[in-house]
Amino acid sequence: MTAAQRPRYTLTLSCPDQVGIVAAVSSFTASFNGWIVEAAQHADSETGLFFMRQEIYVDSVPFGINELRKRFTPIAEQFGMIWKIRDPDVPHRVVLMCSKQDHCITDLLHRWSTGDLKFHLCGVISNHNDLRSLTEYYGAPYHHVPVDPKNKTPAFTRVESLCEEMDAETVVLARYMQIMPPHLCEKYDGRMINIHHSFLPAFIGAKPYHQAFERGVKLIGATCHYVTPDLDAGPIIEQDVARVTHAQDPAEMVRRGQDVERLVLTHGLRMHLEDRVLRYGNKTVVFA
Amino acid sequence: MTAAQRPRYTLTLSCPDQVGIVAAVSSFTASFNGWIVEAAQHADSETGLFFMRQEIYVDSVPFGINELRKRFTPIAEQFGMIWKIRDPDVPHRVVLMCSKQDHCITDLLHRWSTGDLKFHLCGVISNHNDLRSLTEYYGAPYHHVPVDPKNKTPAFTRVESLCEEMDAETVVLARYMQIMPPHLCEKYDGRMINIHHSFLPAFIGAKPYHQAFERGVKLIGATCHYVTPDLDAGPIIEQDVARVTHAQDPAEMVRRGQDVERLVLTHGLRMHLEDRVLRYGNKTVVFA
Amino acid sequence: MTAAQRPRYTLTLSCPDQVGIVAAVSSFTASFNGWIVEAAQHADSETGLFFMRQEIYVDSVPFGINELRKRFTPIAEQFGMIWKIRDPDVPHRVVLMCSKQDHCITDLLHRWSTGDLKFHLCGVISNHNDLRSLTEYYGAPYHHVPVDPKNKTPAFTRVESLCEEMDAETVVLARYMQIMPPHLCEKYDGRMINIHHSFLPAFIGAKPYHQAFERGVKLIGATCHYVTPDLDAGPIIEQDVARVTHAQDPAEMVRRGQDVERLVLTHGLRMHLEDRVLRYGNKTVVFA
Amino acid sequence: MTAAQRPRYTLTLSCPDQVGIVAAVSSFTASFNGWIVEAAQHADSETGLFFMRQEIYVDSVPFGINELRKRFTPIAEQFGMIWKIRDPDVPHRVVLMCSKQDHCITDLLHRWSTGDLKFHLCGVISNHNDLRSLTEYYGAPYHHVPVDPKNKTPAFTRVESLCEEMDAETVVLARYMQIMPPHLCEKYDGRMINIHHSFLPAFIGAKPYHQAFERGVKLIGATCHYVTPDLDAGPIIEQDVARVTHAQDPAEMVRRGQDVERLVLTHGLRMHLEDRVLRYGNKTVVFA
Repeated sequence: MTAAQRPRYTLTLSCPDQVGIVAAVSSFTASFNGWIVEAAQHADSETGLFFMRQEIYVDSVPFGINELRKRFTPIAEQFGMIWKIRDPDVPHRVVLMCSKQDHCITDLLHRWSTGDLKFHLCGVISNHNDLRSLTEYYGAPYHHVPVDPKNKTPAFTRVESLCEEMDAETVVLARYMQIMPPHLCEKYDGRMINIHHSFLPAFIGAKPYHQAFERGVKLIGATCHYVTPDLDAGPIIEQDVARVTHAQDPAEMVRRGQDVERLVLTHGLRMHLEDRVLRYGNKTVVFA
Repeated sequence: MTAAQRPRYTLTLSCPDQVGIVAAVSSFTASFNGWIVEAAQHADSETGLFFMRQEIYVDSVPFGINELRKRFTPIAEQFGMIWKIRDPDVPHRVVLMCSKQDHCITDLLHRWSTGDLKFHLCGVISNHNDLRSLTEYYGAPYHHVPVDPKNKTPAFTRVESLCEEMDAETVVLARYMQIMPPHLCEKYDGRMINIHHSFLPAFIGAKPYHQAFERGVKLIGATCHYVTPDLDAGPIIEQDVARVTHAQDPAEMVRRGQDVERLVLTHGLRMHLEDRVLRYGNKTVVFA
Repeated sequence: MTAAQRPRYTLTLSCPDQVGIVAAVSSFTASFNGWIVEAAQHADSETGLFFMRQEIYVDSVPFGINELRKRFTPIAEQFGMIWKIRDPDVPHRVVLMCSKQDHCITDLLHRWSTGDLKFHLCGVISNHNDLRSLTEYYGAPYHHVPVDPKNKTPAFTRVESLCEEMDAETVVLARYMQIMPPHLCEKYDGRMINIHHSFLPAFIGAKPYHQAFERGVKLIGATCHYVTPDLDAGPIIEQDVARVTHAQDPAEMVRRGQDVERLVLTHGLRMHLEDRVLRYGNKTVVFA
Repeated sequence: MTAAQRPRYTLTLSCPDQVGIVAAVSSFTASFNGWIVEAAQHADSETGLFFMRQEIYVDSVPFGINELRKRFTPIAEQFGMIWKIRDPDVPHRVVLMCSKQDHCITDLLHRWSTGDLKFHLCGVISNHNDLRSLTEYYGAPYHHVPVDPKNKTPAFTRVESLCEEMDAETVVLARYMQIMPPHLCEKYDGRMINIHHSFLPAFIGAKPYHQAFERGVKLIGATCHYVTPDLDAGPIIEQDVARVTHAQDPAEMVRRGQDVERLVLTHGLRMHLEDRVLRYGNKTVVFA
C-alpha cells in the first residue's frame, strides 16, 4: 500500500482568525499520536477568517470517527468553527447532469470507472436521451427528464425528486444546458458544480465562444464554479485558458475550448471531492 | 550576416477575398526574382476579407522601394487592396508614454537599447517626473506634461503638439494612467497601443486587480490593444494570464500581474513594429 | 455547410528552396480558379529546403483529383518536389495499439466516434485483453496479440500481418508498452506515432516519471513523435508540460502526466491526419 | 501598513518525520501568543524527512529574536531539527555575477531598486566590463575580474576574495558564462544560484538552444538551480518553458528563451530570498 492509498480522515474548518487555532488543532491530533500527512491553512485579511485542512492517517487514530468527531467538538466550539471530518469509507454521492454534448461526461465517466476520480456515482440525469448508451456502458443508471420549454417546472420537480431518491450529496452540471431554478441552486448551495465555457466574468450567458469571437480575444477559457441563483456568478473553483488566433472561427473555438472545459471541470470536481474547496461569501479557498 | 539580419521589405495587404490574389502577388514577386522569405495569409469567412503579409529580401529586388511600390500599384488597384510596403531603412518612430509605474517602461527602454525591439525612440512623455532619470540614462528625451485633474485640455494639447513635433508614427501607453481624449484616439487610430491590466473584456476601467480579487478569479491577465474612444474596448493584439490562488491579496496580484503586463505589451508592440498586425473592424489579424 | 465542413484538397510539398515556387504553385491553382482557403510555407535556412501546404476547396476545382494530380506533376518535376494531394473522400486508415493503460485509447476512441478526429479506424491491437470491451463498445475490431517476453518475434510478425490485412496507413502507439522492432519502424517510417511520457530528450526509456521524480524537476512533460529504430529519438511532432512540486510523488506525477499525454497525442495525431506535419531529417515542420 | 508590509520572522526547519512536530511548534508559538500568518509543511515519504515553514508577525512576539531563538532551541533539539529563524531586519547579502549578456542582470537590478526583490546588493562581479554603466546607474559597486582562459585560478581567487570582503550570503550567477571551480561551489553550497538556459536535464552544457534546435523540440526552457560541482546537475528550484515551432532558428530561440530565463531566475531567487526553498539531497522543497 502506497502512502497515497493509505486511508485518511480529512478535517476542514473555518472560523474567525485568532492566535492559537493551529496549536489547539495540532495538539489535539498529537494528543492521540495522530499522523498529519498533509496540512494547509489560510488567513484571509479582508474578512478576518481562518481556514484549515488536515489529512490524518486513519490507522494512526486509536478510535473511530464518531469518537474523533466527539473529541474535536469542544475545540470547534471554543473557536466558533464551521467544520467537517470526512470518513474515507463514505465516498461522496454524486449525480451527473448533461444534455447532448458528451465531452465532459465521457471524461467524468471514464475517470470514475478507473478510480481516478473517487466518488459514488448515483446516476446520470439528462434532458435528452443521447448519452444513455455511453452511461449504461459504464454501468450507471440513466434518467431521461425532458424539459418542456413552455413549462419547465415539472421537469425540475422530477430532477429534484430523482436527486432526493438518489440521496445526492453533490450535483455536477457537465454541460447541462438548462438554467437551474433558484430553489434548487439554494438547496444544493456549495454542492452544485457547473462548467461554464468562458473565462468568467467575461462572456456570461449563452454562446460564450461566439461572444469571444466577436470581441476578438486571443485566449478562450472555461470556469468551474458553484451554482448560485445568479447566472454564472457563483464562487469560482478553477479556471484555465487556451490560445486562439484570428484563424479560429467560432466552431473551431468550440472544439478547442472543449479540451479546456473537460480539464477544468475534472480538476474542480477533484478539488471538491477531496474537500479541498472551502467556500466563503462568493469566493473559495482551494487547498490544491 | 544571418538570415534574420538580412534586410527585408514587408508587404502587408487586405482586400475583398477572390480567386487569384495569391497568384497575382506571388507572380509579381517572381517576375523580378524577388525572394519571399516569410509569407502568411488569412481569409476571414465572416467579413469576406483576405489578408496577406510577405517578407522579401531587399537584396533580391533589382530596384529601389519606390519602383517596387510603383510596380505593385496596378495589382493593388485591381483587387482593391489596402496595402503597405515597409522600408527596413525607415524604422517606426515611437513615442512612449508613462506615469509613475516603471515596470513596462523599463522593459521597453532596455529592449530598445539592445535592439531587441527595433524602432526609433522619439521620446518619453509622462504626467510625472519620476521616470526622467531612467529615461535619460538610456539617452532618450523626457517630456514632463503634468495633467491638471480639473482641466486636462491643456495637457493633452501639449501631448498632441509633442507627438507632432516628434513626428510620432506609433504611441505606446506603457501604463499611462490617464484616459486619452477621443480626438487623439482617432488621430492615432491603429497606431496608439495600450496595455490594460486585466484579461479584457473582464474588468474594464479602474483597479482591475481589485475587481479580480473581489470576483475570486483563479487567473489574472493583461491585454495589449489599440486605443479607441471606447474605454478598454479597442481591437485586441495580445493577451496572457498568470495563475493566482486565494493566498494572493490585491497587492500581490498587482506584483504578479506586472510580469504579465510587461510581456504582453512587449509582444504586442513587437508584432505591431514588424507589421504583423492587420486591423479590421474591432479585431486584428496577427501573423505571429 | 460551414467553411470548415466544405471539403478541401490538401496539397503538401517540399523541395530545394529557390525563387518562384510560390508563384508557380499559386498560378497553377489560379489557372483553374481554384480557391485556396488556407496556406502556409516555410524555408529552412539550415538545409535550404522549402515546405508548403495549401488547402483548396474541392468544389472550386473543375475536374477530379486524378486530373489535378496530373496537371500538377510538371510543376512538381520542375522544382524537384516531394509532394502529395490528399483526397478528402479517402480518410487515413489508422490502427491503434495499446497495452493496459486506457487513458490515451479512451480519448482517441471517443474523438473518433464523434468525428472530432477524422480517420478510418481499422482496428485496435493490444498485447493484453483489458481494453477489448471499451473498443467493442465503440464498434471497432480488437486484436489480442500477446507478446512472449522470451521470444517476441511471433508477436511482431502477427502485428505486421494484421497491419497489412487492415491496410494501415498510420499506426498509433497509444501507450503500447513494447519496443517496436527496427524493421517495423522502418516500414512505417513517418507513419508510426508514439506518445512518450516525458519531455524528450530528457528521461528516455523506462519509467520516465520516476526519473523525473529522482531529478526533482518542476515540470513534467509528454512528447508525441514518429517512431524510428532509435528509442525515443524520432522526429518530435508535439510536446507539452504540466507543473509539479515537491508534494507530488511518482504515482501522482503519473496521474497528472496522463492528462498531458492524452492532449499531446491527440494534438500530434490531429496534425498528422490533417497532413500538417512534414518530416525532414530528424525534425518536423508542423503547419498548425 | 498592509499585511504584506508587516514584518515577519520566518522559521524554517527540517527533521526526521514523527508524530507531534506540528503540535510542538504550534504550541510553542501559541505559548507567547505569536501570530502565524503563513504556514506550510511537507513530509517526504521517500526519505522520511519532514519540512516546515512559518511566518510569524514580529509585533506579536513579546521579546526579541535572540530570545525567540533561545526558546525554540530545546524543541529543535528534541526533534533533531536543522532550523533557522530569519530576522526581517537583516536582509540577505547578495552578490550578482554576469558576463556580457544583460537580460537577467537588468531585470534583477531593476527589481532590487524598486524593492520588488528585497535584498542587500553587495555588488556585481563580471569577467567583462560591459555592464558597468548599467550597474553604476543603479548605484551598486561593479568589480571587473577578467578570466584568463589559460589560467583561471587567479580570477577565481579574486572572485572568492571579493565575495568574502562583501560578506556575500548568496551568489547569483545571472548568465555568468564561466564554470565555477568545485571549491567555490562547495563553499556556497545551497547559496549559489544559477540560471541555465534549457529545461534540465535536457541540454546540459554549452549552447543549449542550438542543441534544442538540432533535436527539433517544440518547447524551450530555463532552469534555476543551486550550483554543485557537477555541471548543471544541482538541485532545481524553478523551471519554465516557452513554445517554439519550426519557424524559429537558434537566434530566435535565444531571444525567446531570454524572457523565460529572466522570469525563472527572478522567481527562483525570490523563493530563495524568502526562505521558501529547503534543500535536501539533490532536490528542493519550495513552499511557494
